[in-house]
Amino acid sequence: MTSYDKIDAYIDKNLNKSLEELKVYVEQPSISAQGIGLKECAQLVKEMLEKRGFKSQVMETDGAPVVFGERKGKSDKTILIYNHYDVQPPEPLELWDSPPFKPEIRDGKMYGRGVSDDKSHLTSRLLAIDAFLSEEGELPCNIKFIIEGEEETSSVHLHDFITQNLDLLKADACIWEFGGVDHRDKPMQYLGLRGICYVELSVTSLGIDVHSGLGGSIFPNAAWRLTWALNSLKGPDEKIRIPGFYDDVIQPTERDRELMAKLPDVEDVYKKQFGVKEFIKGLKGGVDLKMEEVFVPTCTICGITSGYQGPGSKTVQPAFASAKVDFRLVMNQKPEDIVKKLRAHLDAEGFSDVEINFLGGEPAARTDPDDPFVKIVLDTAEDVYDAPMEVVPMIGGSGPSYPFVHDLGLPVVTMGLGYPDTKAHAPNENIRLDLYPQHSKHLARVMRKFSER
Amino acid sequence: MTSYDKIDAYIDKNLNKSLEELKVYVEQPSISAQGIGLKECAQLVKEMLEKRGFKSQVMETDGAPVVFGERKGKSDKTILIYNHYDVQPPEPLELWDSPPFKPEIRDGKMYGRGVSDDKSHLTSRLLAIDAFLSEEGELPCNIKFIIEGEEETSSVHLHDFITQNLDLLKADACIWEFGGVDHRDKPMQYLGLRGICYVELSVTSLGIDVHSGLGGSIFPNAAWRLTWALNSLKGPDEKIRIPGFYDDVIQPTERDRELMAKLPDVEDVYKKQFGVKEFIKGLKGGVDLKMEEVFVPTCTICGITSGYQGPGSKTVQPAFASAKVDFRLVMNQKPEDIVKKLRAHLDAEGFSDVEINFLGGEPAARTDPDDPFVKIVLDTAEDVYDAPMEVVPMIGGSGPSYPFVHDLGLPVVTMGLGYPDTKAHAPNENIRLDLYPQHSKHLARVMRKFSER
Repeated sequence: MTSYDKIDAYIDKNLNKSLEELKVYVEQPSISAQGIGLKECAQLVKEMLEKRGFKSQVMETDGAPVVFGERKGKSDKTILIYNHYDVQPPEPLELWDSPPFKPEIRDGKMYGRGVSDDKSHLTSRLLAIDAFLSEEGELPCNIKFIIEGEEETSSVHLHDFITQNLDLLKADACIWEFGGVDHRDKPMQYLGLRGICYVELSVTSLGIDVHSGLGGSIFPNAAWRLTWALNSLKGPDEKIRIPGFYDDVIQPTERDRELMAKLPDVEDVYKKQFGVKEFIKGLKGGVDLKMEEVFVPTCTICGITSGYQGPGSKTVQPAFASAKVDFRLVMNQKPEDIVKKLRAHLDAEGFSDVEINFLGGEPAARTDPDDPFVKIVLDTAEDVYDAPMEVVPMIGGSGPSYPFVHDLGLPVVTMGLGYPDTKAHAPNENIRLDLYPQHSKHLARVMRKFSER
Repeated sequence: MTSYDKIDAYIDKNLNKSLEELKVYVEQPSISAQGIGLKECAQLVKEMLEKRGFKSQVMETDGAPVVFGERKGKSDKTILIYNHYDVQPPEPLELWDSPPFKPEIRDGKMYGRGVSDDKSHLTSRLLAIDAFLSEEGELPCNIKFIIEGEEETSSVHLHDFITQNLDLLKADACIWEFGGVDHRDKPMQYLGLRGICYVELSVTSLGIDVHSGLGGSIFPNAAWRLTWALNSLKGPDEKIRIPGFYDDVIQPTERDRELMAKLPDVEDVYKKQFGVKEFIKGLKGGVDLKMEEVFVPTCTICGITSGYQGPGSKTVQPAFASAKVDFRLVMNQKPEDIVKKLRAHLDAEGFSDVEINFLGGEPAARTDPDDPFVKIVLDTAEDVYDAPMEVVPMIGGSGPSYPFVHDLGLPVVTMGLGYPDTKAHAPNENIRLDLYPQHSKHLARVMRKFSER
């Protein structure tokens, strides 16, 4: 058995240096939804890779640029590492305890927008790479980085980028942007991602906002039109009413249910952490709750805006209303197909006045739990975490794993420094500093083991 | 017949001075919904009255103060003039062609927030008073002003103020805050106002916003809860579904229909002015449209807010959602009763999680078209407008006329300088300067005629 003493020592010794690099990275806002700081952040990432001797380039797309970097290693095996440099919008700002783009360390955690999702995942991986370069002068295998800037806005241009650069991205395995431990601090292996279809629905009912005393009885109201259109998509029974929505759904297997049953229950954690009083659909907990969380497609209103939203009352009939809606998809639903069915449904229900703006999507994708690369990742974890990695066949979140699995043909594994209270996408996003070097050490082991295969 | 030559000449000669006074008045923001500038504006109004020798006072309420002023005249008859110094919020600011609180004259109009609703109505009335004081040294009758600061937020404290000051406010007739000409430039007499019941509905479903990939299938979503609750209030058939909502409704009479039938049709004007493509409920126009506009109670969403509303997409499940909803009431519905029925309805429909915040209300009220004071106002108009005043038995808007009619026992008439494109409550609110001295001259005639009775 190879000793990791030197590698681990390097990682521990250089942790603070790596955290300083992370701070600089977080201080550079890179909000894809608002088009803020993307070019600057891509440039910063390129420089971070070049510092490690990676042949790097900022590659233009029709949206935010992609940073690609490559460095050869001892073996001819190649790991493709996928990360993203963009972050979610920081709003609502008033709920942050420290400014989102001024990362701050308190009580063993670092707080800041993007600190968990996904910036620390890049810097902690670079720390493992630094360890090999410092202690052994070379990497055990080839490493390619693909670091995009639109993950938080549904990776609209990544799929095309991948199909246009199949040779450049050729690899033997892929490490995903995130991963981490669950509420028991056990490292988890997430092998599937739901798909997503994100749309904005909008209605313009009048040329101008009108005094509500005038128009209330006789003019169409954009807020009402939108309310009724949304209501037609899903009722309190949580069934999605778009005809054909469930047609392509592949139900989970018995094996999926077995794997899910082995995982710890989540009901108490969720209730405490998110202030859930009652789950929907009469769910109480156990394996049913876990299965429902990830194997069922959703229709979620992420935001609604219309008319007057300030303090007190304003008697106005709004001319405009819009809602952001995301559908989480399961195998084998396709986002473009969902948009088509949504349009047909709205038309059939009398809502031709509701416009659909498709903001991005990706189908679901899964990796086989028995793939040899998955086994390496599972096995090497125990040495770092003192616990075997547990397999989660599917998670509720989404990401652009479909082209990695289907176009590049790679097994995709998750590993990282996430933990349940990381508050990704929410105020006070944070990472636990104790998990940071553990991820670096795990990656180092995966790289070595993989090159020895 | 008394000649008005001197009075009219004074009004014409001093128009610009009066407009300068109006500008200063508009430049003082006084947004009741946002609690901005109310005390300052009340003080300004008091000084405006004192300049004319009115015994004036700023009287505190549990909300914005009321300005009261009184000046004796030649006869012992008293006219009570009701105005308000507060204005609607100016948002959305980007749709204004000039800043809302920097009044600007362009093409024979003055633009600014509150310029029409209701600030010019006070200054043009003071111009008529100035004319009598200058040309005759006294007023023909007693004038009392009651000028409140919460009209745009449903006059929450005015009803109590009136019942607590019945002696102070004792009068023989009341002139309302607004009035004006219709699209043919004919002066209109509006003798009834719908009531209003304004509520904010809100839902808190979680302790924190949650990543939509996690909570979409299993956590309650505040935006969905609100959407379904709103949908339970009214469907696309426009029927309000709250049990008992229509119980106290008094249907319009045949006489109401006759009066409405005499009024010009509105469909083309509304289509052009407000960008209406189609009226709701299959309404095409004619007397049916006019009746529906004012004699039917409404349920209007004035605003909705929840979750992410910025550009692009954010995948978040909102913990909070709220909507502003106004009900326009007809005779004899009562706001407190509607709130009770709304609560019972939401509970019965499974929406006990939807909180109701009652932001204010007032029942509908009407004045008899055959009241002698109404006749004076109708008759004197022709001398100024070269057209007889037409009687509108009820309008769609609301105001606190109920205590004036029911507690003070006064006939309430409307007169003013409004016109159809005045854009009250909307961006680019404006007045036509040609209508300004006409209103002053009409008021002068009403004051004289009334004192001669």
